[in-house]
Amino acid sequence: MNLLRIAQAQINTTVGDFRGNLEKVIQWIGRAESADADLVTFPELALCGYPPEDLLLKRRFLHNNWEALQQLEEHCSGIAVLVGFAHAQDGKVYNAAALLGGSSLLGVYHKIELPNYGVFDEKRYFIPGLGCFVFEMYGTRIAVTICEDIWIPGSVVEMCAMRNHADIVLNISGSPFFAGKLDVRKNIVGRFANATETTVFYNNLVGGQDELIFDGGSMVVNSKGELIASASRFAEDLLVTDIKLDGPPKEREAWNLVDPMVSLSERESPPDRQYVPPTVVPHLNRIAEIYEALVLGTKDYVRKNGFDKVVIGLSGGIDSALTAAIAVAALGEDQVVGVTMPSRFTSGETRSDAELVARNLKVELITVPINDIFQAYLKALEGPFNKGEPGVETENIQARIRGNILMALSNRFCWLVLTTGNKSETAVGYCTLYGDMAGGFAVLKDVTKSDVYELSGYINEKAGRDVIPRSTIDRAPSAELRPDQKDEDSLPPYVILDPILRAYVEEDKVAAEIEGFDPAVVREVARMVDRNEYKRRQAPPGVKITPKAFGKDRRLPITNRYISCAIKE
Amino acid sequence: MNLLRIAQAQINTTVGDFRGNLEKVIQWIGRAESADADLVTFPELALCGYPPEDLLLKRRFLHNNWEALQQLEEHCSGIAVLVGFAHAQDGKVYNAAALLGGSSLLGVYHKIELPNYGVFDEKRYFIPGLGCFVFEMYGTRIAVTICEDIWIPGSVVEMCAMRNHADIVLNISGSPFFAGKLDVRKNIVGRFANATETTVFYNNLVGGQDELIFDGGSMVVNSKGELIASASRFAEDLLVTDIKLDGPPKEREAWNLVDPMVSLSERESPPDRQYVPPTVVPHLNRIAEIYEALVLGTKDYVRKNGFDKVVIGLSGGIDSALTAAIAVAALGEDQVVGVTMPSRFTSGETRSDAELVARNLKVELITVPINDIFQAYLKALEGPFNKGEPGVETENIQARIRGNILMALSNRFCWLVLTTGNKSETAVGYCTLYGDMAGGFAVLKDVTKSDVYELSGYINEKAGRDVIPRSTIDRAPSAELRPDQKDEDSLPPYVILDPILRAYVEEDKVAAEIEGFDPAVVREVARMVDRNEYKRRQAPPGVKITPKAFGKDRRLPITNRYISCAIKE
Repeated sequence: MNLLRIAQAQINTTVGDFRGNLEKVIQWIGRAESADADLVTFPELALCGYPPEDLLLKRRFLHNNWEALQQLEEHCSGIAVLVGFAHAQDGKVYNAAALLGGSSLLGVYHKIELPNYGVFDEKRYFIPGLGCFVFEMYGTRIAVTICEDIWIPGSVVEMCAMRNHADIVLNISGSPFFAGKLDVRKNIVGRFANATETTVFYNNLVGGQDELIFDGGSMVVNSKGELIASASRFAEDLLVTDIKLDGPPKEREAWNLVDPMVSLSERESPPDRQYVPPTVVPHLNRIAEIYEALVLGTKDYVRKNGFDKVVIGLSGGIDSALTAAIAVAALGEDQVVGVTMPSRFTSGETRSDAELVARNLKVELITVPINDIFQAYLKALEGPFNKGEPGVETENIQARIRGNILMALSNRFCWLVLTTGNKSETAVGYCTLYGDMAGGFAVLKDVTKSDVYELSGYINEKAGRDVIPRSTIDRAPSAELRPDQKDEDSLPPYVILDPILRAYVEEDKVAAEIEGFDPAVVREVARMVDRNEYKRRQAPPGVKITPKAFGKDRRLPITNRYISCAIKE
Repeated sequence: MNLLRIAQAQINTTVGDFRGNLEKVIQWIGRAESADADLVTFPELALCGYPPEDLLLKRRFLHNNWEALQQLEEHCSGIAVLVGFAHAQDGKVYNAAALLGGSSLLGVYHKIELPNYGVFDEKRYFIPGLGCFVFEMYGTRIAVTICEDIWIPGSVVEMCAMRNHADIVLNISGSPFFAGKLDVRKNIVGRFANATETTVFYNNLVGGQDELIFDGGSMVVNSKGELIASASRFAEDLLVTDIKLDGPPKEREAWNLVDPMVSLSERESPPDRQYVPPTVVPHLNRIAEIYEALVLGTKDYVRKNGFDKVVIGLSGGIDSALTAAIAVAALGEDQVVGVTMPSRFTSGETRSDAELVARNLKVELITVPINDIFQAYLKALEGPFNKGEPGVETENIQARIRGNILMALSNRFCWLVLTTGNKSETAVGYCTLYGDMAGGFAVLKDVTKSDVYELSGYINEKAGRDVIPRSTIDRAPSAELRPDQKDEDSLPPYVILDPILRAYVEEDKVAAEIEGFDPAVVREVARMVDRNEYKRRQAPPGVKITPKAFGKDRRLPITNRYISCAIKE
């Protein structure tokens, strides 16, 4: 059978690690060759890692891209290779894809559509390309595109693919995750495949980079918009897909090639080979994919930043229990240390729940009581506190003692501190700066309290036992910084708070536009979100799992009088 | 004499404060009318404040711009008004300037050149305008431009001004400060005036907004590139300039108006008036302008965020003394509280210097010794610290105790904590996260240690006495967290460190490109800068005074293996 075999290398690169990324690309070229592929693709900016941000402003960094590409040439003899890199040319910088074959560089495509919204700042770094890039293998015409290029209906890129009567479109991507994003991508890829009457090979990146998770899920979609092959989620994978070349050739009377064209095939037809049926991976539900994203994000942040172990303050509450469970899944039980820091406000139940969590997860538990330290603060501050009205300051002192203890352990043993705050708390500032917010990575930063419960249930169901103790799930949430404190003394119930936050934060509505809730509650929530921008600005990074996370996704001023004005309208 | 009188209102707006900004615009229209001006201009995005960042993604926020503009119409009867606002039209958003007169909106110009580098993200929010905007007053042809429009040689905007034979170009700006920026602007404005043979009225914003300072310095530059009038720096001002209309009119044979044109002058010529000679303000030297920027930045951050008082940890060192002096200049001595928190490592000299600084500045001083608290921590951590090797953890515990105490005072009394770290320390991470980095605003964040000394000398010279004690200036810098500690035990001397940092951070060089220093020292400094990105990500905002400040000016990944690769080349 006349088969073209395309391999998509869904690899996990690291920003700035030219040596490591190059080695990985070479290794996966070998894997694709072993699979007898004609062509192997790699993700967007694979050589330098994605997204490199302001490293792209360093001339030497750009030069290193070129050096890495040159070193790659000799490894591309028996196979064609398409790989992403940052291309500096005539004082301009392009987000580029290089086509290599026969041990040399055959051509370079420059991304035309540059995203500059959400987490993307590509217009800060890149100039859009001007022309498209099409090449031929065994009479099959293949167009090269990069990520956003296929997201814009009616774009130049779409016109080019049609004008050149491409059979296949390769798209190398770095598409960050949010829950539900895979379905969005399938629609986008399907629409493009359909509009251009091509089969689209969509090669996504995998791995965590600071706040972003790339979830893989590379795919092949035919011109009817049907998914014909798909790669793993949240893991490296080589997706090998055979395309039959025996169908009737596309009509090419209107042959109108204005764009550069490279012919790769020295032979007329591909080698004889056995058809391998395409792989399709099963669908993950929403909570399962969030869980996988949190595990991969935590693992890659810890490992890529050179840490072995993490330390987590176990309060006995659900957030810290869930954080610890994710850390164990990411790193292994030997790499996670729990610390319980009881005060006089810690109930017997939460104390024993902290111990139970550590036991369930088989992690070491260190106990550091904080009451004597707390008393030493109160004594030292007796004079200054003679004046003024008592407020939250003594609660915050306790939270900051815990932060100090975790950081002391971190400094002593080189453990990374994972913080445990969720998105609902972070949004309204129900957390203590330098206290429970102190740490290197905030696993649940973009997870609402409602989803904290769902994830805990999912973990227990998966394990077939209560890893996260039933009592932490059932008990009303409390910060335990004063007697009988409950979250709901200060906040609306999470079933009300979370949808208001979704409308205000993710949908960019103002208070007056959010319907279905008590307007006074909505205004107060909006005011809390705005008033606490300064806290979030000093928060550690965490895994983005929603369409709009706190971080570079949402860039609001700290100095901001809008809310008060909007409210009084 | 036939005089056209143009007033430039260099006002201090607040982001999101539509009511406040509108009131201020109306008030300054009144001032311009009192000065008998024909026309008054306001800065870029004056109605919504600048830069509004992601508030521009809220539909309601855009609508509020339009409402504010409508409310302005009735106040523009006897005078023409040019004011910046965000213009939502047909689903697109423009950075716009509205021309009002005769109590109605006469026309709107859309900014064509959108900056998307450094601190600017305008392509995230705005669509570039397509046509220029020219209007006529008393036979004088006036072109409207916004900020970046005049920064690009050979731009569409430049062509438009020439094609329409403009006599005058109005430029409304929001141009953030760095030391030396005013001279850059004068050259830019001069070049544009010269190229277009026009007189350029450059109306800048004034005031602080988070990390950005707008330094005012509005100006009028004639077609020879000569500065003919200039407004105050770092303060609101109304710059009123008369232009004589008696010269020979421009040749307009090649009249080729494709752009919209508005005629404002019902009368043939302006009212009879006395020529007022233009104002020119004296030049500020580099250290003086940095000082003024720090004072204004601190004042506006504190006041616009609703605080009255600030609290500062006075260590007895030069950084905290300088921070306190700037705070007193910004807010007044009654609004500044110093806290000294001696430990057993605090020398007698630094302790008495802290007291001396408080006395010199006439600020309240609170003393909170930290030794008992420190001992309580050591005791609580005795068990866990049985293992591992002692490192910096006990030093950091002390710094974080001080952070906790300052935050406790902040929480109790609603005082904003000012941190005292400088750019040199922040760059290499010679500072404790949640310790001395804990606070709401970092006054010296972008000031190198070398400039800390220069600023201290400047303040003492200005005061005619040693406000900053001589001994803090002369003593070798020390964190005083262990016996006999000196900064130079851990860091290269600041005379070496600061130029390396300038090359690495501000000029985006890699270690191998930085010459004139021991390569091993350069590599170590570069490694420290990269390794401490995670700390800076959690730092409070501070005043930008250099071309590249830490913050949204410099967007480097935390997860970044570039340095180690680059070094081994």
